Amino acid sequence: MRHYLIASFFALVSLGSAQAEDAFRDKAKGLFEPIPKTAPALPDNPSTPEKLLLGKMLYFEPRLSDHRDLACSTCHNLSMGGVDGGVLSGGHNAQLAGREVQTVLNAVFNKSQYWDGRATDLKDQVVNSVMANPKAMLKTRGGPMAINPAELAATKQHEIDQLKAVPQYVEAFKKAFPGEADPLVYDNIGRAIALFEATLITPDAPFDRWLTGDDAALDETQKAGLKLFVEKGCATCHNGVNIGGASYAKFGVVANPGPEHLPSEDAGRYGVTKDNADRYAFKVPSLRNVELTAPYFHTGSTFDLRKAVTVMAEAQLGQKLSDDETTKIVAFLKSLTGKQPEIVLPILPPRDR
Amino acid sequence: MRHYLIASFFALVSLGSAQAEDAFRDKAKGLFEPIPKTAPALPDNPSTPEKLLLGKMLYFEPRLSDHRDLACSTCHNLSMGGVDGGVLSGGHNAQLAGREVQTVLNAVFNKSQYWDGRATDLKDQVVNSVMANPKAMLKTRGGPMAINPAELAATKQHEIDQLKAVPQYVEAFKKAFPGEADPLVYDNIGRAIALFEATLITPDAPFDRWLTGDDAALDETQKAGLKLFVEKGCATCHNGVNIGGASYAKFGVVANPGPEHLPSEDAGRYGVTKDNADRYAFKVPSLRNVELTAPYFHTGSTFDLRKAVTVMAEAQLGQKLSDDETTKIVAFLKSLTGKQPEIVLPILPPRDR
Repeated sequence: MRHYLIASFFALVSLGSAQAEDAFRDKAKGLFEPIPKTAPALPDNPSTPEKLLLGKMLYFEPRLSDHRDLACSTCHNLSMGGVDGGVLSGGHNAQLAGREVQTVLNAVFNKSQYWDGRATDLKDQVVNSVMANPKAMLKTRGGPMAINPAELAATKQHEIDQLKAVPQYVEAFKKAFPGEADPLVYDNIGRAIALFEATLITPDAPFDRWLTGDDAALDETQKAGLKLFVEKGCATCHNGVNIGGASYAKFGVVANPGPEHLPSEDAGRYGVTKDNADRYAFKVPSLRNVELTAPYFHTGSTFDLRKAVTVMAEAQLGQKLSDDETTKIVAFLKSLTGKQPEIVLPILPPRDR
Repeated sequence: MRHYLIASFFALVSLGSAQAEDAFRDKAKGLFEPIPKTAPALPDNPSTPEKLLLGKMLYFEPRLSDHRDLACSTCHNLSMGGVDGGVLSGGHNAQLAGREVQTVLNAVFNKSQYWDGRATDLKDQVVNSVMANPKAMLKTRGGPMAINPAELAATKQHEIDQLKAVPQYVEAFKKAFPGEADPLVYDNIGRAIALFEATLITPDAPFDRWLTGDDAALDETQKAGLKLFVEKGCATCHNGVNIGGASYAKFGVVANPGPEHLPSEDAGRYGVTKDNADRYAFKVPSLRNVELTAPYFHTGSTFDLRKAVTVMAEAQLGQKLSDDETTKIVAFLKSLTGKQPEIVLPILPPRDR
């Protein structure tokens, strides 16, 4: 079905008229969807103002880490496209099977979370990340972790105890989870943060405005880039609302991109499924806001979006792009930057002593 | 003069009437001033919307550190009273002459910056901190640093180069510093950030509302705490608009607080002046928002405000406080928490590639 759409897409784009533009758009609508203007509801996690406020506070709360120095917001920086700008990037830690931070922006639209999809939804991702030892997280960047469970449990109890020493948190959990005897538990931390994260969406990207009828939202270079993006095959995986995030793909379908980008010790999705078919498969990342989320790949091995595009074209599609083609595709990718969430910093409550 | 005021202060507080309350307040006004409602102007650094916006962006900009992982906001967290909640506190690093992070909130009202006063104003503090190797800063927490100047210069040029690779920054510096041939330099980074920091003030604390005429803004325990705060001698140093921040004092005037709080290897202000009279003298910290700024002392050696109060009473004043007196003084100190600045996170621009 998708391949049929892609083929017919190009029968239409060369018409060069308003009619052709509409036909071009109709076909694009078969491949892509705009980011909705409002946050989606989460199953079994209804939104209330109290839970949302708590989730925002916890997102910025360093006391959720054992040394009180790392919050969700440290690595998923909302000033920087929901990533950390490549600090301690996987490239420096390849020996630890490190993986690059993925953006929290629009993560609610991904089919699974993490590069290997080991969390099925935001709440699972939050609990997994918060329960993990953050120092280990920093070293492994979301890759497999070897943590002593006894030590971890002690640390985690310490963190819960820290929050329980803050009267405003005790009260906030009661209000966010009314009727629960002991609401200050990790699962509820996960629910509250997931609810906040589901609001971190970026509507109104130029591409979405074009997709919904504004011809002038993309310039000619960007439109040519979109055409190439589909024609070359990028949209085979990078499609849907998140232009990715919906499937897994082997990195190096056609040609191995080399150990810089794909170190052999990290077999990706295989680590989760133990299925040989998943060796070196990774979740196809969303390309939303990609100009803000360098460095690229699960290894964070390049900050250069042009380079990332050419590596992908060669490794996944066996295509050698011209400089001009790369320029156009990059111009299109920059049209995927949406309106960033406006975040007023929460004020975190002190302990009572 | 101050001592005369303190003595006459207590001749009046026991009257127990509205008249007595007014007299009590008049005397308090001789010792303290409220935080103004609007940001003060900085000498030779006029405020413009463009410079202020740039300063805010740079305050949150991790690309000002050599590993792109530390911004001003990392240690001076505006969700947490302008400090970092004690991560890597001096206590862990006493062997490095470490010093605890001081709050950026109301720092514009301090007579000098840092525990040893080595920066005369916010701009000097910014340039000093940004020019310092941030990794060294983390280890020494603002204490003396031994950095290879050649290595530092190379790192710093790298950071300027990083900002120059961001077209929006090049443009923003031009707009913030019109007419300058090469505006993207460290001194201008300092000017812009200092201007933003000068807006980080916390007016409307209960104490300030009481000071300006609202009898009900303090409860009876807090008023009794204020009385004790002056009577015991705390206000001899902790006075003025910042309830501190205006002078230096030896830590351990009456009794040495012990190596936990005052490790012998950090001689404080002496390191700046080389004057023996300044051995173990530190800038008297502001007590504004003190309930938010644990841990306390230049060593960050306690998170417990009660403990900090009792240590100070013994070391500085030779006073052994009763539990009840400590409770009252702590209640008063919590009335110094003002309205925290409402900060909308800036969106930081990407590099152009």
